[in-house]
Amino acid sequence: MAATRQVNIAIIGAGGVGKCFLAQLEQLAARRPTPKIVLCYIASSKKAVYNADYAPIALSSAIATLSASSQAPLGLPSLADYLVSSNAHKAVLIDNTSSQDIADAYPSFLRRGISIVTPSKKAFSGSYQLWQDIFSASAESGASMYHESSVGAGLPIISTLRDLVDTGDEVTKIEGVFSGTMSFLFNSFAPTSGTGGGKWSAEVAKAKALGYTEPDPRDDLNGMDVARKLTILARIVGLEVESPASFPVQSLIPAELESAASGDEFLARLPEFDAQMEATKAEAEKEGKVIRYVGSIDVATKEIKVGLQKFDRASPIAGLKGSDNIFSFYTKRYGANPLIIQGAGAGGEVTAMGVTSGLIKIISHQS
Amino acid sequence: MAATRQVNIAIIGAGGVGKCFLAQLEQLAARRPTPKIVLCYIASSKKAVYNADYAPIALSSAIATLSASSQAPLGLPSLADYLVSSNAHKAVLIDNTSSQDIADAYPSFLRRGISIVTPSKKAFSGSYQLWQDIFSASAESGASMYHESSVGAGLPIISTLRDLVDTGDEVTKIEGVFSGTMSFLFNSFAPTSGTGGGKWSAEVAKAKALGYTEPDPRDDLNGMDVARKLTILARIVGLEVESPASFPVQSLIPAELESAASGDEFLARLPEFDAQMEATKAEAEKEGKVIRYVGSIDVATKEIKVGLQKFDRASPIAGLKGSDNIFSFYTKRYGANPLIIQGAGAGGEVTAMGVTSGLIKIISHQS
Repeated sequence: MAATRQVNIAIIGAGGVGKCFLAQLEQLAARRPTPKIVLCYIASSKKAVYNADYAPIALSSAIATLSASSQAPLGLPSLADYLVSSNAHKAVLIDNTSSQDIADAYPSFLRRGISIVTPSKKAFSGSYQLWQDIFSASAESGASMYHESSVGAGLPIISTLRDLVDTGDEVTKIEGVFSGTMSFLFNSFAPTSGTGGGKWSAEVAKAKALGYTEPDPRDDLNGMDVARKLTILARIVGLEVESPASFPVQSLIPAELESAASGDEFLARLPEFDAQMEATKAEAEKEGKVIRYVGSIDVATKEIKVGLQKFDRASPIAGLKGSDNIFSFYTKRYGANPLIIQGAGAGGEVTAMGVTSGLIKIISHQS
Repeated sequence: MAATRQVNIAIIGAGGVGKCFLAQLEQLAARRPTPKIVLCYIASSKKAVYNADYAPIALSSAIATLSASSQAPLGLPSLADYLVSSNAHKAVLIDNTSSQDIADAYPSFLRRGISIVTPSKKAFSGSYQLWQDIFSASAESGASMYHESSVGAGLPIISTLRDLVDTGDEVTKIEGVFSGTMSFLFNSFAPTSGTGGGKWSAEVAKAKALGYTEPDPRDDLNGMDVARKLTILARIVGLEVESPASFPVQSLIPAELESAASGDEFLARLPEFDAQMEATKAEAEKEGKVIRYVGSIDVATKEIKVGLQKFDRASPIAGLKGSDNIFSFYTKRYGANPLIIQGAGAGGEVTAMGVTSGLIKIISHQS
C-alpha cells in the first residue's frame, strides 16, 4: 500500500452499535482532516455498498445508501482483496457484528496488513487457537487489533489491563461485576440500604420489561456473557484459558427450567423457585452482607470462577448503582487497594465509543 | 531520520521515578526486540552519559554509569541536535524531572520530530501559551506528547479523558480527590465509620511522619497540587484556563501560619487552629456527611474550584481508602452515573508506569 495519507475503512454491521459508530465517525472525520478518513465499504448481512474505484461513501447518508442498495456483500476473502488493493495508507476493518464467521477470518485480514477494530467478544472468547492466531498475525504484519468494547463497552478495561501487563506490573487478581444485566438485577434485588427488593422472579420480569435483559432472560442468567469476558481478561494476563467452558460458571437458571420452551414460559414458572434465591439473600443479610453476581480471576492459582458471592455493604462492588459495571485490578504495584474502573458497561453509544477510540489509535500512528 | 527500526531514548532525571522507569525500561527492552530500544543519553542535573557515536548505554548499569561519569549534561538545544542527528527511526525524550526550563523547551523538541514522555505537571499547568505551543508543535511535526502520569500517576486518567473528548462525548463535570496526601488526611480525620479521627494537627503530623506529605506540609495544604491537576483536565476538555491561579483554591493553611519560618514551626503552631477544622467536620456530621478535599470542573458554567465539600457517607468519594485518588467523569453518554477511576495516584512505581505506557504507545506505532 502506498503512503498516501488516507485511511480506508470497511464497516460490517449496521445495527445499534453500527449506527452509533457511524455518527461518531462522521464527527471524527470532520474534526480530523489528516489522515483522510474514507468509508469505502459498508455492509449488513444482506446488502453492501462499495465502489470499484473506492470512491468515498458519504458518512452522513451511509445507512440510507445501504438500505437502498442492490449490491450483495463481498465474501470475506474478496473483501480483504478489495481493501488490500485500495492503495490507501492504511486499511481498517470495523466489525460491528457478533458473527463467528467474521471473527474466524480476523487472522487472514491481519496477515494482509488490514487493521481491525471490533466490539465483538466472539474472536477473543472462543478457542485459544484463534486468540493465538489473531495476535501472532497482528505481531507479524504490524496491523493493529483493538477490541476495547469486548469487555465493559467504552470503559478503559482492555487498554488498562494491557498497560499493566506491558509495563511489567504483576496482576494478582481481577474481580468485578461484568454484566449490566446482573448488576441491575442484584442492585435491585439486594440493595445496600432500605428494606430490600422484591421477589427474584419479579425483579427478573422488571429487568426484562425495562430492556435490561436479552429477549430470553436465560441468555443473561446462564452467566456465559460474564464467562466470555473473564476468558478475555484472563488471556490478557497470560492464562491459557482454552474456552469459557474451562472454569466453573454458576448458572442462575433452575435446572427444571433449562428446557422451558420460551423466555415467556421461563418467566412464568420462575416464581416457583423464588424461595431458593430468597434464602441465599437472607443468609448474606445475617452476616450484614449482600449478594452480587461476580467474576474473578486469581492469577497465581489460575482459579477463574463466575457466580454469587457475598460482599460487605460498604464495599465498592456492593455499592454499585443501576446497571453499572465495576472492575477491580489487584496488582503488585497497586498493593492492597485495587485500581478500580466503574460505569456503564453496555449501550450503543458507549460501545461505539470503544470502537471509535480504537480507530483513533490506528489513525493517530505516525508513519 | 532514516527508517532503521530503532528508537533512541534520552532520559533526564534519575531520582525516584527515574530509577523505577529505568527498571521498567530494561524489562520492556528485553521483552520487545523490535523496534530496538537504545538508551543514548541519560542525565541528572549535574552529570550526563552519552557517546558521540550513539553507542547504547547498558540499561542495567545506567544509574551506576551516570554516578561515575565526568561528562556534563548537554544544553537543551545541543541535546535536541544530538537526538535529531542520531539517525534512529524515532527519538524520544523522557523528562523525569520537574524542571520548568525543560518543560519550556518541549515545543522546540517536538517541532524537530522528537517525541516526549513525562510525568511532570510543569509543562501543562503553567501558562496557557505553553500548552498551545506544545500541542500545536506536536500536531505539526507528528511527534507524540504523552503525560499520563501528570494526573493520577499510572491511573488511566489523561488517556480516558482524551478518549471521551476525541470520540465526541460531551463531558459535563469532573469531580474527585486528586491528591494522595489530601485523601489520606481526610480519610483519617473524618472516616466514614467508627468514632472519627484524631485532631487535625495530629493527623497532619502523622501523615508527615508516614511520608505522605512534602517535607513542608504546607506545600500540600495550599491546594496548588490539586489546582495544577485540575488545570490540566480542564484544558483537555477545552476550557482555556490561563493558569492554576485563575480559579478559587481553598488553602488549608491558616493565614497566621503562612509566614511560619519552617514546616516544623508550622506543625508546632497548627494545634492552635484545630477548633476551626473540628467545627467544619462537626457541621458535616450533623447532616450525616463527611468532609473531603476535592476538585471539580463544571464544564457548562466553566466553574473550577478546589476545596472542602461535604459528601454522603455512602458516596464513592467518601468511601475512598488510604491515600487513593478518585476521578469521576460525568458525560452525556454515561448519563447519571459517572465513569469512575480510582486507586493509588502517587508512588514511584505507578508514576513510572504512566511514563512507560506512553513510551510503549510511541514504539508500537506502525510505520
